Amino acid sequence: MARGRRLGEFELIARYFRPLAHPDYGLDLADDAAAMSFDPPGELVLTADTLIAGVHFFADDPASLIARKALRVNLSDLAAKGAEPVGYLMSIGLPYDWNESWIEAFCGGLSRDQQEYGAALLGGDTVCSPERMVISITAIGRSGERGMVRRSGGETGDIVFVTGTIGDGALGLKLRRDQSLARTWKLDAQHKRFLEERYLLPQPRLSAIPALRGHANAAMDVSDGLIGDLRKLAAASGVGVRLDMSAIPVSEAAGKAVAASPALMKTLVGGGDDYEILALVPPARSADFVAALEAIELPVREIGRCDGALEAGSLVDGSGKTIDPDGDSFTHF
Amino acid sequence: MARGRRLGEFELIARYFRPLAHPDYGLDLADDAAAMSFDPPGELVLTADTLIAGVHFFADDPASLIARKALRVNLSDLAAKGAEPVGYLMSIGLPYDWNESWIEAFCGGLSRDQQEYGAALLGGDTVCSPERMVISITAIGRSGERGMVRRSGGETGDIVFVTGTIGDGALGLKLRRDQSLARTWKLDAQHKRFLEERYLLPQPRLSAIPALRGHANAAMDVSDGLIGDLRKLAAASGVGVRLDMSAIPVSEAAGKAVAASPALMKTLVGGGDDYEILALVPPARSADFVAALEAIELPVREIGRCDGALEAGSLVDGSGKTIDPDGDSFTHF
Repeated sequence: MARGRRLGEFELIARYFRPLAHPDYGLDLADDAAAMSFDPPGELVLTADTLIAGVHFFADDPASLIARKALRVNLSDLAAKGAEPVGYLMSIGLPYDWNESWIEAFCGGLSRDQQEYGAALLGGDTVCSPERMVISITAIGRSGERGMVRRSGGETGDIVFVTGTIGDGALGLKLRRDQSLARTWKLDAQHKRFLEERYLLPQPRLSAIPALRGHANAAMDVSDGLIGDLRKLAAASGVGVRLDMSAIPVSEAAGKAVAASPALMKTLVGGGDDYEILALVPPARSADFVAALEAIELPVREIGRCDGALEAGSLVDGSGKTIDPDGDSFTHF
Repeated sequence: MARGRRLGEFELIARYFRPLAHPDYGLDLADDAAAMSFDPPGELVLTADTLIAGVHFFADDPASLIARKALRVNLSDLAAKGAEPVGYLMSIGLPYDWNESWIEAFCGGLSRDQQEYGAALLGGDTVCSPERMVISITAIGRSGERGMVRRSGGETGDIVFVTGTIGDGALGLKLRRDQSLARTWKLDAQHKRFLEERYLLPQPRLSAIPALRGHANAAMDVSDGLIGDLRKLAAASGVGVRLDMSAIPVSEAAGKAVAASPALMKTLVGGGDDYEILALVPPARSADFVAALEAIELPVREIGRCDGALEAGSLVDGSGKTIDPDGDSFTHF
């Protein structure tokens, strides 16, 4: 570790970023661009997400977790599209007060997730961002033979599934901002930690890719809140959804919090940071879809049904009443 | 134009970014990712550059020019790699005080350059960047049959060529910071404007792609200063370069400035923002390379020769003396 001086861009890349370079396409980060081969069948899948300190993460979060979250939110998009990760380009804006130990931990986090998820660094840019760390990642994946799983493929009758549990990340963010909420919500230390970790370190559902490729008509990841994202998915597919709100999967920790503070239900289904997968699956494939996810021990829950007779993008409850994302629907279940 | 209220992200995308979406791969920006088909031969070429207000451009530069520069610096990388642009992903960080007319002009600039250069928007992200506009673009291109033109392909004997003129952008930046320099440098209004425009609006040399694909062993774009970039190119190719500094092409405007202030020569060859192309071409192909560029009226100049007997990445002058980028070499020619 250098002390008392700062690395230049060239040394920074050579020492910390080059070891992350994709072995075939990254050219040791010593060229102007990555050169990637691609053979059919399938499509290239490209997605970009940017995280800014103080907006998308706390500047004093551990650097390795910031790195992993920045990568994982992009991998979550690939997963939902049925796309295996290939690599990513990363532009990083370093504030004036960056230091080498932060970069070392940051790159350590990337390295760990690269090994876990099979993506590698293809290129990028290192710039000065005076006030705030900015991490902008473009992730590249490849679809299965039948192409990317789009938002628009859902049809009347399709069953709406969601993986994992919903709302943990949003509660974790609230706890991160106000630790005293743990007492209000009657959480023990373990439940508190569970929710905080769900916010800090999303789990991109890449293991769901075979099930999505094989069976889903449409899918997306839940990053901006279940209700809003399901409306987007339904709108793109030209259907409405009859949603069984009581079926929305909630973790033990989130369940305790909601029992103590029922108004939190709106946060759970609207808050975001879930990084679970919403999928629309035709009834004839749903048993196979569920079996494929059960085989890898990824929980999945049926939460609704697509209906083309409803207004595209609308959600209704069991009695046919429209679910208003800004209304009080969420305190009643 | 909305007044007195701000568009949400959804409306912003629908109104301004959706019209820029790639017709085949962009999916109306209504999915989580772009889905791009790709058939061999050739390689995908991927490059990323980020521009930050106050660092890479002035916040009060015209929005359309900021947009076009952000796109063009990426297209310049593709051009140097012999890659035809396909599209780009753009993450834009909007400061608290953004307004719709700025976005309208920004997207107008993108639209104009999309038509000029044949790239279109594939996706991206819109986030809040409290203090400063951040524009992070990842551009995607496709190489010719023989693959991307790399930095590393140069060989002993290759002739070093550079397109256009060198140093205009660096002088334009100095003028942008201190208008009074125009008088010091004895520039008339036309020459002053020429240099300023060279800084504000780079010309990506996409027209050089066929010549590069057909004849160049190695190439890169000149963005960080001719001397430094030529050293990188030579180092990647494992050669040194005998550089004829008197052959470095200089515009009439830059020539006037240097005549008035000879110390500026160091700025010209070291300053950056040229977005010209450096190419290493074997002697047997150099006549065809030059003819191909002359046919499209893109000026090109021979400025040196690769020599594997020299230290990789080193530059020497006509007398064999090492050119020290930090020394006073540049005031003597």
